[in-house]
Amino acid sequence: MTNRITEAHLGLLVGQRNYRALRAALATMNAVDIAAFINALPAEEGLILFRLLQKTVAADVFSELDYEIQRRLAEAIHDREITALFDALAIDDAVDMLEEMPAPLVKRILQNASSDTRALLNQYLRFPEDSVGSVMTAEFTDLRPDMTAAEAVTHIRSFGQDKETIYNCYVVDAQRLLLGVITVRALLTARADARVEGLMEPGVMSVHTTDDSEKAARMLSRYSFISLPVVDDEQRLVGIITIDDAANVLQEEATEDLERMAAMAPSDKPYLKTGIMTLAKNRVLWLLVLMLSGIVSELVVGRFEVAISAVPLLVAFIPMLSDMGGDAGSQVSTLVIRGMALDEVDSRSTPRLFGKEVLVSLLVGLPLALLNFGRIVVTGGEPLVALTISVALVCTILMANTLGVLFPVLARRLKVDPALMATPMIATIVDILSMLIYFSLARALLGV
Amino acid sequence: MTNRITEAHLGLLVGQRNYRALRAALATMNAVDIAAFINALPAEEGLILFRLLQKTVAADVFSELDYEIQRRLAEAIHDREITALFDALAIDDAVDMLEEMPAPLVKRILQNASSDTRALLNQYLRFPEDSVGSVMTAEFTDLRPDMTAAEAVTHIRSFGQDKETIYNCYVVDAQRLLLGVITVRALLTARADARVEGLMEPGVMSVHTTDDSEKAARMLSRYSFISLPVVDDEQRLVGIITIDDAANVLQEEATEDLERMAAMAPSDKPYLKTGIMTLAKNRVLWLLVLMLSGIVSELVVGRFEVAISAVPLLVAFIPMLSDMGGDAGSQVSTLVIRGMALDEVDSRSTPRLFGKEVLVSLLVGLPLALLNFGRIVVTGGEPLVALTISVALVCTILMANTLGVLFPVLARRLKVDPALMATPMIATIVDILSMLIYFSLARALLGV
Repeated sequence: MTNRITEAHLGLLVGQRNYRALRAALATMNAVDIAAFINALPAEEGLILFRLLQKTVAADVFSELDYEIQRRLAEAIHDREITALFDALAIDDAVDMLEEMPAPLVKRILQNASSDTRALLNQYLRFPEDSVGSVMTAEFTDLRPDMTAAEAVTHIRSFGQDKETIYNCYVVDAQRLLLGVITVRALLTARADARVEGLMEPGVMSVHTTDDSEKAARMLSRYSFISLPVVDDEQRLVGIITIDDAANVLQEEATEDLERMAAMAPSDKPYLKTGIMTLAKNRVLWLLVLMLSGIVSELVVGRFEVAISAVPLLVAFIPMLSDMGGDAGSQVSTLVIRGMALDEVDSRSTPRLFGKEVLVSLLVGLPLALLNFGRIVVTGGEPLVALTISVALVCTILMANTLGVLFPVLARRLKVDPALMATPMIATIVDILSMLIYFSLARALLGV
Repeated sequence: MTNRITEAHLGLLVGQRNYRALRAALATMNAVDIAAFINALPAEEGLILFRLLQKTVAADVFSELDYEIQRRLAEAIHDREITALFDALAIDDAVDMLEEMPAPLVKRILQNASSDTRALLNQYLRFPEDSVGSVMTAEFTDLRPDMTAAEAVTHIRSFGQDKETIYNCYVVDAQRLLLGVITVRALLTARADARVEGLMEPGVMSVHTTDDSEKAARMLSRYSFISLPVVDDEQRLVGIITIDDAANVLQEEATEDLERMAAMAPSDKPYLKTGIMTLAKNRVLWLLVLMLSGIVSELVVGRFEVAISAVPLLVAFIPMLSDMGGDAGSQVSTLVIRGMALDEVDSRSTPRLFGKEVLVSLLVGLPLALLNFGRIVVTGGEPLVALTISVALVCTILMANTLGVLFPVLARRLKVDPALMATPMIATIVDILSMLIYFSLARALLGV
């Protein structure tokens, strides 16, 4: 539909220093796309481009830039420009930025912000990370219960210009206690002289500034709300959290869970923006734990040196057994952990989970073991060796599936993030147990 | 804030057949919560409860019920009730349901729907699964360019009652070609006699009915839009896709990616609702592939029977090496696959990825290898054995990290879902290579 301007074309204009054409092109673009383009430019050129933007667009673009570029821009521009920029930003965006910036720069920005903005910023900066307070916005539309629908619409007309969302309007009393919610749709379709009090929905759901932002995001998503009101300790309305913020929160949580499940410390920044020292640090701790827990499987296997010397062929199946245990365990724990994150699995379902997974282990394990047995015998293997391996395989899958349920369930009971019970940890424990079973079976069946 | 009614209390009322109190309690509840409660009841009681609902609420509740319960309800109620129910449903919800229901029931529902609803349903049912057409809603607000702001507000007042979202209004010409978008906020804050044409934003972004719904969801999320217009082959406006639908799409995609990365076929239904046969079927294929690929590592290890007989201690470290390779590989591939899903990583970044991961492998691998060497020597191990294992460890991590980048990148180039290059597959290949390196080193260093 739109003739989108390509980054290549824009890059050309920057290179040619054709500012007139550049300004015209920027005027047709969305702030998100402009920011993506500036992020891809060297810092010098990015700064030039940023200065070409109209004042009204600059704040939107700024809030979408990478932190590193925001910092450099904030350092490079004049105090007067900083004031204008931070006053124009939505408070929640400004807070996000300040949290990432070095202390001297934060001080300079706060000194230059208008006193209203500074007061708000200071208030927000006190909320803990990942709390509703840190992601909410103070820009919402509030109405009084005794307004008529017509007065409410006039109120929105006069004060609605800057508000983040006017779709849901919140009704508060003189003490700012939250009374109800009313949509613009309801106001517009109501009789002009109907009172807001009679039109609003009372008993509106709300969240608290110190609640976990993920909890609020799940509520918004569960009920398909566009926004949720946020109240303080005295139950006074202080902000709203909107569906687009919630979508970001859920996206970040899904990424964090993925990283934890793959045995990493979660990262604040996108992968490509994370330095190699941080990447290494995020990964090495778990690998160290897993390496040290490898000592246990060493001890187990070490106990069976005689059996190994007698039937060295047994060793050939160790990697396969180890992989199957790890894979089966990660299949189950992934489903359980994701189910917990989406609130589909709770503590009441634990017994059902175990029952289900025992059955699935047998449904999956028995055919695989039979096939494995046949394959080894057909290719000339010893039937008793084939039996040892195949029985060990079924036991391994059974253990992996059971531990795949047990670990996330235990973690949750201990109030630990289930994703932290990383699937590699399950793999290591299944390894140890399956080596023990494998070689014990070998001893019993093969008499070694 | 609200005094939420507990499920226990509701259950009690159902058990007591206290329908009066039940009806009063239901009247204060959100449709999503009522549906969650009915989902938790036996089918008989669920049906009774459903019949207690007010007509206006029933459709909302119905659209949130589990498919199995929807089917049973639809089978149990009268033709007249079906007509009322499906006419009251949002079209996209009705389509979702029909797609899950058995053919005879679909036929009965379509026969009983009003002719308008039937025509719409038939139109929607033709869109492929996962396309924008299958998740869009036809209930949007459209304006004409020559309306004044005041006329537009009156239009919304009269026709806006049923619309899914009136926040973004789309401006179309007489041929229904999409001209622009205007927010209710802009209409309300504009001068009453200003023309829509002058107020609207032209060149609005849109998606096509046959586009992938994930693409549309990412666009909504990227630009923080509340809705996106959907056009047909002739560029005529036929529907909108809203941010809450997009949040669901992204949620489902994240779950599917997780399942694929854990070597499973993705499931349509939540984990607890999936039968054990389906669970087993989703998992067994990958396990079979991995089991068969284990034959290769068997052959590799089999070639070194002499070395194993000479130094059986070598075997003790196989599980640790195998686990470290698998874990390192899954750390990297998780970051790369997630980065691709979030559009943070593209083909241009491939060389940087490899450079980064080689450095991180060394940063992570060398200290771990040193520690491992020290630990084995201190506990009385042969230094040459310790050296063999430690060098193999560094090589394993290096290979795992490289393959962790290579596999998702290759998959993407081959237009295959990167998540399908499941991390267990990387683990198996790293296993084979690391056994080869380990025993070759042992042969060279230990002369066995």
